[in-house]
Amino acid sequence: MEAIRVIQVGLGPIGQGIVKFLLEREGLELVAAVDTAADKIGRDVGQLCGLDKKIGIKVRDNLSETIEDTNPDVAIVSTASSMEKVAPLIEQILSASVAVVTTCEEMAYPWMTQGALSKRLDESARKAGVAVLATGVNPGFLMDFLPLCFTAICQKVEKIKVQRIQDASTRRVPFQQKIGAGLTLEQFEAKRQSGTIRHVGLTESMHMIAARLGWKLEKTEDVLEPVVAVKEITSGYIPIKPGMVAGVRQSGKGYVNGEEVITLEFVATVGQNDPADVVEIDGQPKIKSIIPGGINGDVATCAIAVNAISSIISAEPGLRTMADMPPITFFNTLT
Amino acid sequence: MEAIRVIQVGLGPIGQGIVKFLLEREGLELVAAVDTAADKIGRDVGQLCGLDKKIGIKVRDNLSETIEDTNPDVAIVSTASSMEKVAPLIEQILSASVAVVTTCEEMAYPWMTQGALSKRLDESARKAGVAVLATGVNPGFLMDFLPLCFTAICQKVEKIKVQRIQDASTRRVPFQQKIGAGLTLEQFEAKRQSGTIRHVGLTESMHMIAARLGWKLEKTEDVLEPVVAVKEITSGYIPIKPGMVAGVRQSGKGYVNGEEVITLEFVATVGQNDPADVVEIDGQPKIKSIIPGGINGDVATCAIAVNAISSIISAEPGLRTMADMPPITFFNTLT
Repeated sequence: MEAIRVIQVGLGPIGQGIVKFLLEREGLELVAAVDTAADKIGRDVGQLCGLDKKIGIKVRDNLSETIEDTNPDVAIVSTASSMEKVAPLIEQILSASVAVVTTCEEMAYPWMTQGALSKRLDESARKAGVAVLATGVNPGFLMDFLPLCFTAICQKVEKIKVQRIQDASTRRVPFQQKIGAGLTLEQFEAKRQSGTIRHVGLTESMHMIAARLGWKLEKTEDVLEPVVAVKEITSGYIPIKPGMVAGVRQSGKGYVNGEEVITLEFVATVGQNDPADVVEIDGQPKIKSIIPGGINGDVATCAIAVNAISSIISAEPGLRTMADMPPITFFNTLT
Repeated sequence: MEAIRVIQVGLGPIGQGIVKFLLEREGLELVAAVDTAADKIGRDVGQLCGLDKKIGIKVRDNLSETIEDTNPDVAIVSTASSMEKVAPLIEQILSASVAVVTTCEEMAYPWMTQGALSKRLDESARKAGVAVLATGVNPGFLMDFLPLCFTAICQKVEKIKVQRIQDASTRRVPFQQKIGAGLTLEQFEAKRQSGTIRHVGLTESMHMIAARLGWKLEKTEDVLEPVVAVKEITSGYIPIKPGMVAGVRQSGKGYVNGEEVITLEFVATVGQNDPADVVEIDGQPKIKSIIPGGINGDVATCAIAVNAISSIISAEPGLRTMADMPPITFFNTLT
């Protein structure tokens, strides 16, 4: 089988991680990479992504020209969490009949939150005869796809609760900064109001779950609060004194008839005890699934984006979600 | 939306469980049930299945006539573990352009073990424009679909190990008998040789995993051995003395280049400590997922067969597997 030709659009931390994973995989060929940051354009993609050698592909800034020159099968787009920002790029890619995998969190299940835009992308994709899918570890897997899969063995589902409890101590510094570790409560509040601290995707995950189960959510909530250190924490990139912020707790709640039927709890703090990814289904049977230690989000998001490449090519044309296409899996040839 | 019309074919323990679940669900209508056992034909299906009232549907013995009379959308077939036994029934159903969900274990992934028969059913289904799917808790979910799903977030997968460790103490008596609880080693060996003690599906699960990942298995093994009581066990339907059989351990192993890359361990004993369903992926990242207590197989198999009904109707025509169609989920309208 010929290698699948892939271009990477967006070379931030996730885009760089995807490139590294792509280059390791048989059956996939990175044919170009695009980013519009002045300090990235023209640089060797391998070196930019932290490899110790050049790969002979330079960062380009013109998406349309790049597609025309390199004739890719699939584009991976990881430029922003906002669907409004990402949609024009995706339209441009679809107009060349190239399939799209994106890590854009708002697109994980955009039908309820961005109905008109979803419909437009869906139509463009169908017209082009290719599929578009947003995926990632969360949204896209741990807090939506995985609990949905577990409901398959249930005769009744009353409530779904998912917890993603992360110890940020071992994560990269920007992640620790993103969750507000080491800030005062005032500083945290300022960042909260500016929107830079928020994990994007809880609402989309709730809508994916509800839509697939046939539940009509009358209300969703997405509440962000600081987790305050009660004693000094020294496991992170800076010491955190008691009273300072150790990280965030963000809760998504979905309601039917006034009752909370979906609860998604996203916790990331420096020095967190007992990190784990937990799914609980209250139903018949009751199911509790635990991944002790939890899943490293960066690795998992880059991996699932790469693994999605082989699925997206054979997927039904249109705007797809993780809930309406065959399961993405690792693929390889063990030789 | 109009209710989906369903017939149940086969009214053994699993078929009866499916009927009970079907009758509880909105959006599904049981229109007939078929079984050829003389002591079942003509009885009210509700009463036969242990409900305390008649449902006004009598067990019929002629499948073709039943389909013609009741015009179902989907047939659920739970008559046997053997694909050879089930295939003629399924052919008959397909010839009426009715979609099929079956709990036949050998059909969970029959492409490697029953290639010609799989191809024939696939062609019949395509010709009829409907889909056929075999599913269940195992094979069909815990030891194949679920580990496959977890590989989505892996950049590398070296080995997959799945353990299904069950305490049979709380299961129905026929299950305890089936796993040989209370037998002498000689009695167990006689039953083993007659094939009545074996769990069917480990080989099919290994082939599903391997095919989806792109691994070529050069050899599979499926080894069954007794688990012997070391002290008296009184938690089951009969006391088990030391030296007697408490249950079974069955191991499926799949090899690539002489290395065991898939290990499926199925253990069911009376008085088993720490029952659990465990998936371990050795790769990047390593993943360990645990369902403490484990999943009750009867409930889960009946539930997933019922939940598959809404998926099979919109599935691509042909012989499908859990690995190549959108995830089955619970479905309902919370009102």
